[in-house]
Amino acid sequence: MFTSGDNNKELFLGIDGGGSKCKAIVMNENDEILGTGISGPGNPLHGFEQATNSITESAQLALKDAGLEHIQLNELNAGVGLAGVNLPALYDQMKAWQHPFKQMFLAHDLLIACLGAHHSNNGAVIISGTGSCGFSCIDGQEVLIGGHGFPQGDKGSGAWFGLQATKQVLLSLDGIVESSLMNDVLLDKLSCTNATSIVEAIAGKKATFYAQLANLVFDAAEQGDKVALAIVEEGAEYINSIARTLLARKPARISMLGGLTPRLQSCLDKNLQGQLSEPLSAPEVGSVLFARQEILKQQGLSAQQSE
Amino acid sequence: MFTSGDNNKELFLGIDGGGSKCKAIVMNENDEILGTGISGPGNPLHGFEQATNSITESAQLALKDAGLEHIQLNELNAGVGLAGVNLPALYDQMKAWQHPFKQMFLAHDLLIACLGAHHSNNGAVIISGTGSCGFSCIDGQEVLIGGHGFPQGDKGSGAWFGLQATKQVLLSLDGIVESSLMNDVLLDKLSCTNATSIVEAIAGKKATFYAQLANLVFDAAEQGDKVALAIVEEGAEYINSIARTLLARKPARISMLGGLTPRLQSCLDKNLQGQLSEPLSAPEVGSVLFARQEILKQQGLSAQQSE
Repeated sequence: MFTSGDNNKELFLGIDGGGSKCKAIVMNENDEILGTGISGPGNPLHGFEQATNSITESAQLALKDAGLEHIQLNELNAGVGLAGVNLPALYDQMKAWQHPFKQMFLAHDLLIACLGAHHSNNGAVIISGTGSCGFSCIDGQEVLIGGHGFPQGDKGSGAWFGLQATKQVLLSLDGIVESSLMNDVLLDKLSCTNATSIVEAIAGKKATFYAQLANLVFDAAEQGDKVALAIVEEGAEYINSIARTLLARKPARISMLGGLTPRLQSCLDKNLQGQLSEPLSAPEVGSVLFARQEILKQQGLSAQQSE
Repeated sequence: MFTSGDNNKELFLGIDGGGSKCKAIVMNENDEILGTGISGPGNPLHGFEQATNSITESAQLALKDAGLEHIQLNELNAGVGLAGVNLPALYDQMKAWQHPFKQMFLAHDLLIACLGAHHSNNGAVIISGTGSCGFSCIDGQEVLIGGHGFPQGDKGSGAWFGLQATKQVLLSLDGIVESSLMNDVLLDKLSCTNATSIVEAIAGKKATFYAQLANLVFDAAEQGDKVALAIVEEGAEYINSIARTLLARKPARISMLGGLTPRLQSCLDKNLQGQLSEPLSAPEVGSVLFARQEILKQQGLSAQQSE
């Protein structure tokens, strides 16, 4: 058990803040996870106050989970990985936060996912969850592919699959395209009986809503449904394109992450599948690795300055 | 000039309330339009209070335009056609409105568009503006095709064309698809320099925003741009499908309406184009025709009851 004063300089907080939840871990210098916490949305796209509250709350929950309630947040070095801060305006806003930590090292969610997956600065990740994108970091050179958001981008993501299913069902209820196994499943899932009631049920719904419909496309495809198979093929082909673009940069490792991975990975090009490695750790561990790297840089810098 | 008391029983108000504006006309018994008024959004999907305020405001503006300020709203029989009231919940909400008119006859926007276009209860309309749909009314039997909203439906609409352009430009900036003439035009129009700034510029934008981008697809297609041509073909083919489905019901007339008509109509199947008739009047005139029909029904009913 850690006690305040002796070992708190070796305690790190790792944050992975996304659009639906914020995850926190407390790690010691031996890479042991002492506690975890989960709170609400941590993506500043959904509001600065919501994001900062979620980060603080998840951190306190992680300390409590570790039995370290006596440790104050201002004793922790925090690696904070957040979705959305690849946008300069949100990065600047979060960077200006009067945070409660000893130090805060801010990174976007893809960098910490990549660091966590590979424990190295040379790797690539393909992500398909609610959204989709590809990212590589090779010798500090970052490349982002996709991640353009819903509905204008994020092809091959959960939200995209759910939206395609909805579109096809609506078209078939109008007799414009053939109906598919997805029709009854979607109508049932939304407790609807016709196109009008579907439109009422989905009015104004966001990406997270559509992502919950993704599985019905894969279920129907597995039963040989042609319409669903065509959607899966189109989504998988986009993810294949992302993978090929990333592999052209020759990362040391490449992994696939995100909630849709269990369904989508086996639909990718077989050759690409063979090149995917299991991620070593979760993104919140990547946040801790990022904080440690940044502290080493600070120390290197101060060592240089004192020479 | 009309004066209150003498002729007000013959004065009708026609309302066409859509997502971006609400149009009103005042008509006399000779089908002469005495005045027009335009106010803000009249679609109750955007809020009951906004819609009812817009309806009242546009009506007062139309009376003023007609030089009939002395006429009170409670002297007018109002035909009120509104987008959104094909959804039962919105219909019921609007029907329960404590409206300021002598009588209010509520219809959805497609019925009044069809009545206005054909001056008859036997006709069909294809609409492509911000959204898209097909509608026919034959001997009181109404059929709606599409109109499922953005982004899940409304293929071949202005919003759909604008979104397709945005998607293609984002994919090409990632190197996933070839770039097109639309790239520079879109970047310029949004004052953006790369994918990230596009994503910032379009975050959370609604159908009306994307509809403003539709013309750049048609402009690029006219210059022979392959990517734009493919988008136009896909959108036009959906509108062709709607037209064929409507024609199978053998309406007396069929017209194409909506802001995208001047660009899209010439891209449709040539055989279908030949079957389209010019609309006779605007939807707000259809609202007046609807109100008159309903009053005739009331009179027929009361005549029956007194027999």
